[in-house]
Amino acid sequence: MPRRAEPPARRATVRDVAARAGVSPGTVSKALNGTGQISRATRDRILAAAQEIDFRPNALARSVFERRSYTVGLITTDSFERFSVPVMLGAEDALGAGKISVFMCDSRDDPIREKHYVDVLLGRRVDGFIVTGRIFNEREPLDVSPGVPVVYALTPSSDPGDCSIVVDDAAAGRVAGEHLIRLGRRRIGHITGSAWFDPARRRAAGLAEALGAAGLEVAGDPLYGDWTEAWGRQATHILLRSCPEVDAIYCGSDILARGVGDSLRELGRRVPEDVALIGTDNWEFIAGGARPPLTSVDLGLSTVGRLAARRLLEAIGGNSRAGKEYVPCHLVVRGSTDDLPPASTGSAS
Amino acid sequence: MPRRAEPPARRATVRDVAARAGVSPGTVSKALNGTGQISRATRDRILAAAQEIDFRPNALARSVFERRSYTVGLITTDSFERFSVPVMLGAEDALGAGKISVFMCDSRDDPIREKHYVDVLLGRRVDGFIVTGRIFNEREPLDVSPGVPVVYALTPSSDPGDCSIVVDDAAAGRVAGEHLIRLGRRRIGHITGSAWFDPARRRAAGLAEALGAAGLEVAGDPLYGDWTEAWGRQATHILLRSCPEVDAIYCGSDILARGVGDSLRELGRRVPEDVALIGTDNWEFIAGGARPPLTSVDLGLSTVGRLAARRLLEAIGGNSRAGKEYVPCHLVVRGSTDDLPPASTGSAS
Repeated sequence: MPRRAEPPARRATVRDVAARAGVSPGTVSKALNGTGQISRATRDRILAAAQEIDFRPNALARSVFERRSYTVGLITTDSFERFSVPVMLGAEDALGAGKISVFMCDSRDDPIREKHYVDVLLGRRVDGFIVTGRIFNEREPLDVSPGVPVVYALTPSSDPGDCSIVVDDAAAGRVAGEHLIRLGRRRIGHITGSAWFDPARRRAAGLAEALGAAGLEVAGDPLYGDWTEAWGRQATHILLRSCPEVDAIYCGSDILARGVGDSLRELGRRVPEDVALIGTDNWEFIAGGARPPLTSVDLGLSTVGRLAARRLLEAIGGNSRAGKEYVPCHLVVRGSTDDLPPASTGSAS
Repeated sequence: MPRRAEPPARRATVRDVAARAGVSPGTVSKALNGTGQISRATRDRILAAAQEIDFRPNALARSVFERRSYTVGLITTDSFERFSVPVMLGAEDALGAGKISVFMCDSRDDPIREKHYVDVLLGRRVDGFIVTGRIFNEREPLDVSPGVPVVYALTPSSDPGDCSIVVDDAAAGRVAGEHLIRLGRRRIGHITGSAWFDPARRRAAGLAEALGAAGLEVAGDPLYGDWTEAWGRQATHILLRSCPEVDAIYCGSDILARGVGDSLRELGRRVPEDVALIGTDNWEFIAGGARPPLTSVDLGLSTVGRLAARRLLEAIGGNSRAGKEYVPCHLVVRGSTDDLPPASTGSAS
C-alpha cells in the first residue's frame, strides 16, 4: 500500500481513509460507525489511517445510517425581514443548544420556490421544518411527505391538525387599552394598518374589549390604512378632526406611531401630556428613536421562535401537538405614556 | 426475508431498504451510488426495494462518497440585522440556483460560539463558509482547516491572502459630494457615526476628496458621534451654530439623516430648498418614510452577498482569489435633493 509522506492539503475524506487503509469506502464507514461485520485488525488499520490523515468525525456520514440528520429547514416567506428574524434567532437559540444545524430558505412567498426548497431539504433528510413569514394570516400547509414534522411560527397553518405558534394579537390590543385606562385616559383612538391583515382586526377587537370593560368605546372608528408613517400622519389629522378631545392613541405598529407622534407635535399636542401614545412591535430601532421614545407592545417574536423549535424537537421525538398556541405579549414602557408600568405587565426597554 | 404489507409511515431510510432487500446498509449505499462491486441481481433487488417503500434519492448519503456536500455555512456576527440580511439574501440567490443549501449561524460576535459553529459545520462537511457581520472593520480569519474555502463579506479578513468582498465607503462619500456639487451646493457639512468605525472615516475622506476636487472643504469639521437619530438632531444644531450658511448635509446613515431632517424642519430650514440632504444605506423603510423622502447612497449589500457566493463557488472549484474586492455604490435620488440624477450615477428608488 502506498504511504504518502504528507496528509493531503484538502480535507481528508472517507475515500482517502479507504485508500490509505487499503479497503473500500463502505468498509471505512462501517468501521467508523461501528456497524457491520469487520475484523478487529481491519478496524484498527482504518482508525489509524483516519488519524494519520486527520480525518474528522463526520456527522454527515454518521447520519446516513441513523434515522436523523440533526438538521432542520427554516423556511420564511418574507426574506428574513423584521418579523421573521427574531423568530429565526429564537429558533436557532433553541436548536443550536442541541447541536442541530439549521438550513435557511427564503421562499419569497412563491409556492414554486417553496416546493423546490422542500424537495431539496427532504433529499438532505432534514428532521423537520419550521415555517415562518411576515403575513400572520393563515397559510396552506407545507407540502411534505407524511411523517415529516412541521411547526408553523407567526403564520399559522390552515389545517387545525398542524402545530402553529402565534402571537396573541387580541391581547396586544387589550394590554394597550388597559394600560391607557389605568393612566386615566378616556378618549382613546386607534390607528392601524390594513384590515385585510387578520392581526389588525384582532388588535382592534382586543382594544375595544378592554375599553368596553371600562364602559368606553374606541374614539371614532378604528382607522385602517396601510403600514406607513405617511398613513400615521394622515390618520392623526382625520382622528383629531372627528374627535378633537382624544387623549390617547393606540397604534397597530411602531412605524405608524412614529407618524402619529410627528403629526401630534406639529398640531401642538404634547405627547404624553395631552395625548398618550402606544405602538406595537417594540422595534427598538424605531420606538427608541422617537421623540419621546415610544411605549410599545412587544409581541414576543423570539419566544415564538424558541417555542416553535421546542415543539419541533418534541415532534421529531414522536410527541407532536395540534392546534394554535399563543405566546403572551407584554408592554414596554417608554416616554410616550406618562407613568411607570405596574410590575406585573411591564418591563424596562 | 420478511415483507411488510405497508411502507413505514415515517420516511424510509437506507436501513429500511437494506432490511427489505436482505443486504447490509453499506451494500444499499453502493447500489444507490453506483460504487463498489455488486452483482446485477443484488442491485436490482435493492432498487426495487427502494421503490416499493418510497425511498427518496438521498443527497445526504450520496455526498458521503463525494468530495462535496453541496452545503455552505453562512456565519454572521450581527444576529442577521439590516446589514447582513441583504448580504445573506444575495448569497442565497447565487447559491440556491446551484442547488447548494445554506446553513445559517449567528455567532453574535462571540468567538466561542463561532468556533462551535465552525466545528459543527466542518463535521457536516460543508464545502466552504461565507462570513459576514455589521462591523465593517477588519476581523481575524476564521479558524478552519487548511483547504476549506472562506469568503468574507462586508467585514474583511485581516489576512491579505483571504478573499474579502467589501463596500466602497470612500466612493459613497465621493458620490454624495459630487452630486451635491452638481446641484450647485457649496457649503456642505458632514454628520456621521463613530470614528472608531473605519467606514465612517472612509466616507468622510471620500466626501472631502470630492469637495477638494472642486476647491471646497467640508463645512465645519465632520461631526462624529453615534449612529442614532438623537445624534443626528443634536449634530444639526452644532453644525448650524458653527456654519449657519450650510446649504447641504451628507450623513453617514439614513437614520442620522432622519434626525437631521427633523431638526432642520424645526429650525425653519426647508429641505431641499435651503439645505439638501443625502443619507447612506438606502434603507427603504427609513429613507422612504422621511419628509421629504431621503436621497441616499446605496452601498450594494445584496451585490456583496451575490459576489461573495460566486467567489466561494469558484474557490470550491479550486480557483480562489486573494485580497479585497470593492462593490460599487450608487445614488438613489428622492425628494431631499432638488434635482433629477444624471443618468450615469442615479437610479429611481
